[in-house]
Amino acid sequence: MDAPLRWAGDALELLDQTRLPAEEVWIRCESAEDVADAIRRLAVRGAPLIGIAGAYGAALGMRAATEGEPAAARFDAVARLLAASRPTAANLGWALERAREVAGREPDKPARDLAEPLVDLAEKLAADQRAADERMAKLGAQLLEPGDRVLTHCNTGALATGALGTAGGILAEAWSAGRLAQVWVDETRPLLQGARLTAWELARAGIPFRLLTDASAGIVMARGLVDRVVVGADRIARNGDVANKVGTYGVAVLAARHRIPFYVAAPRSTIDLDTPTGDEVQIEERDATEVTTLGEVAIAPPDAGAVNFAFDVTPNELVAAIVTEAGVLEPPYEESIERALAA
Amino acid sequence: MDAPLRWAGDALELLDQTRLPAEEVWIRCESAEDVADAIRRLAVRGAPLIGIAGAYGAALGMRAATEGEPAAARFDAVARLLAASRPTAANLGWALERAREVAGREPDKPARDLAEPLVDLAEKLAADQRAADERMAKLGAQLLEPGDRVLTHCNTGALATGALGTAGGILAEAWSAGRLAQVWVDETRPLLQGARLTAWELARAGIPFRLLTDASAGIVMARGLVDRVVVGADRIARNGDVANKVGTYGVAVLAARHRIPFYVAAPRSTIDLDTPTGDEVQIEERDATEVTTLGEVAIAPPDAGAVNFAFDVTPNELVAAIVTEAGVLEPPYEESIERALAA
Repeated sequence: MDAPLRWAGDALELLDQTRLPAEEVWIRCESAEDVADAIRRLAVRGAPLIGIAGAYGAALGMRAATEGEPAAARFDAVARLLAASRPTAANLGWALERAREVAGREPDKPARDLAEPLVDLAEKLAADQRAADERMAKLGAQLLEPGDRVLTHCNTGALATGALGTAGGILAEAWSAGRLAQVWVDETRPLLQGARLTAWELARAGIPFRLLTDASAGIVMARGLVDRVVVGADRIARNGDVANKVGTYGVAVLAARHRIPFYVAAPRSTIDLDTPTGDEVQIEERDATEVTTLGEVAIAPPDAGAVNFAFDVTPNELVAAIVTEAGVLEPPYEESIERALAA
Repeated sequence: MDAPLRWAGDALELLDQTRLPAEEVWIRCESAEDVADAIRRLAVRGAPLIGIAGAYGAALGMRAATEGEPAAARFDAVARLLAASRPTAANLGWALERAREVAGREPDKPARDLAEPLVDLAEKLAADQRAADERMAKLGAQLLEPGDRVLTHCNTGALATGALGTAGGILAEAWSAGRLAQVWVDETRPLLQGARLTAWELARAGIPFRLLTDASAGIVMARGLVDRVVVGADRIARNGDVANKVGTYGVAVLAARHRIPFYVAAPRSTIDLDTPTGDEVQIEERDATEVTTLGEVAIAPPDAGAVNFAFDVTPNELVAAIVTEAGVLEPPYEESIERALAA
């Protein structure tokens, strides 16, 4: 499919993922604020894709500087705005660090002059992601066996990276290679990225799938209907603990009980060496109304409170392997991660 | 609250639980078919309550017999219709067995003459359930400790039994006794009995609660925010395996990992000695549209298929205790269940 993000020369255009699958609506972000807002409300989502969007956002932020405003101070403000839009995904902070390197090369240059190099950076990040996705797809598909029925959680396809996807790319490659019988798609409440986005992508790609509620992973595993689990990641700690969409941890615990291999696919930009373990990952809490309403429909009594952690942490001992563009990492992850990032 | 079921002399009136919490609408069942339909579409639900509704349904079925039609044959047809309306809940079959004993006492009597004794039976079942609920509430509340934050799944209050409820009754009693700080309410997809019904009951009772998506049980447990789990049951096998609303199994597996006691509350009528283990429980599969739509709103692409098991099975080794009106049963369950049913 076409990438859900495109640069229009003077604005970033995004396929509004909150409207899928009902409508395909593109929105136009003309400022860093627009981009931060689109990230915050999940119009653009998926850890790798919000990294790329963040780099374009930085370019837009620099372009809007006043005449003669120096690059360094301007960049700080723009990066802070963008980084705060979603705290858990590592790739956003990582992309902004790459942007900071570009901005830092000539700190006294007018900020506006950095807009173009930052667009170049964003395009490079997108190209790198495409290459990483292709590599992860090839490597990950080899972990699957013909006839496999693979459960996944949330969305990790083109909508999450702008290219093949992480876990989603592995599923597509495995399907082409005859190593996949069917995908089980967790609906992924509260925002239903599985039911809305992954189902939409798989249907378009002609890959057989069935939806299930998040609470159904246990019974399908208990009935022997799941051979592997493959998911993406929003941040991977130095020890291999994986922060990913809330519910991933429960799937991993069930998979362990049923001796079903649990794989994570993510580019190296998702790995954060500054986060020693999952305990140090900041978990974004979102508004309770995402739980108490569905679209416009209230599904709970008016004053019901709700907790809404957007992510959870899967401890490394539940992860059979982490597929990156630099190879398939296996435990002990402290070592394999160090090697992969040095490569 | 008022019971969600009342006998109107010539019809069974039911609070339509599919419309809660938005609207309080009563429906009128004038025939066994009406009752079977109400059970099938979950207008009346909760294993104990559908047992009671089934007994009233049997009375309505006999009342509609033709002049002089003999009781025995008529009863068979009526019981078959009602029993098929929901296969997993043990209490429905159990109540119909009680009804069969009443009908069997005078097999040659005109069927119509059995309507009244069957109404009497239904009223007795409801009274017995009230007494059982009170006893379970007292016994179960003693398992909790002041300050406990208790997670529950699905709905097990008055809407599920017509009286105090099973797990819900324990929560209410514990709250009165100062042994409960807060309830965590799983929303319980696909039909949201937690978000719609349990939240509504707890709000009316003034018991503090917070909703969470089913996929969030792992993170709230990992963060140390849950002290116990208490759930109901739809069928308990002779070995203590528990069939309950889909998702219960995943909660139990997570609770075991976090060493959180997992309790089940159910009257003895939920225990089925003819089911040796959870493997033999027939798990109802419901329509995929319950997963792919929410109310009138489509939440997945038009042709998306879905699996929709209504229940799952929690193996006995994950269950710390089963609270019945005959006492708190502990492992080994083969023995404690046998003693409880003999009592």
